[in-house]
Amino acid sequence: MGGHGLDQQISLSNIVEMEKKLRHISGAIKQSGRKILHHYPITSPQFIALQWLLEEGDLTIGELSQKNGLAFSTTTDLVDRMEKNGLVLRTRDTNDRRVVRIQVLDKGKKIIKEVIRKRQAYLGDVLETFSESEKDTLNELLTKLHEQMKIINDQ
Amino acid sequence: MGGHGLDQQISLSNIVEMEKKLRHISGAIKQSGRKILHHYPITSPQFIALQWLLEEGDLTIGELSQKNGLAFSTTTDLVDRMEKNGLVLRTRDTNDRRVVRIQVLDKGKKIIKEVIRKRQAYLGDVLETFSESEKDTLNELLTKLHEQMKIINDQ
Repeated sequence: MGGHGLDQQISLSNIVEMEKKLRHISGAIKQSGRKILHHYPITSPQFIALQWLLEEGDLTIGELSQKNGLAFSTTTDLVDRMEKNGLVLRTRDTNDRRVVRIQVLDKGKKIIKEVIRKRQAYLGDVLETFSESEKDTLNELLTKLHEQMKIINDQ
Repeated sequence: MGGHGLDQQISLSNIVEMEKKLRHISGAIKQSGRKILHHYPITSPQFIALQWLLEEGDLTIGELSQKNGLAFSTTTDLVDRMEKNGLVLRTRDTNDRRVVRIQVLDKGKKIIKEVIRKRQAYLGDVLETFSESEKDTLNELLTKLHEQMKIINDQ
């Protein structure tokens, strides 16, 4: 952190406040997400895994573990349960038959798309009182925040 | 959402983007939080429960369940485990002896304070490339976002 004296104190109190706010925003998103999932036959960890698979394409267990920051064994159990429920299928990589990839089946795709649409509707309600320029600024700053988090998390 | 035609489409694509960004930011925060907790004898749900108890004062199991958005039985199990580990203590409310409140013990307080300090250091690193004015704007917009989320989640 750059500043000196008072500047530095202000900057620090800003960080203290923002850490708390981001913690509580994450909590509120989690809570609203849990309410939405209540109507679907998947759990929160399954939702997170399925959205990674749909965004990033068919991943291996190792790649999915890394995305989730979970142990290989935890991800294996998760995939086992999703496969049993007809949400995903283990398939052989067409280029390298030794590699197993996880493919999302139509049932999984349909659920994730519906859940994400409901999460968007929730966020639409939350942002109802924001002006267009506030939404744009928030979008820009969140983009920058996410970019920086990816850099720091990968270190 | 107010606009028509193109305005409405831009506003919608903004929401679609922001839902995804907030989802990924929550994920990145969770991942960094998990890395920090790795060095402490508490789990993620225990961290969340302890931070509520420290911020809101001694809550009942019912109040804590509501804050967490978890079932009463899940919270009871969580408190049992935290009590066994010397992090919290069940105490009788001094005004109404029928009411049981959860008090955070010194061991729990020490852990939470250290964990939050590490989370602040992480966020400080993430915001290193933000100007003071960007940090202020982000702080303001996150405050508004959190306020609106609380209103919508309570509905």
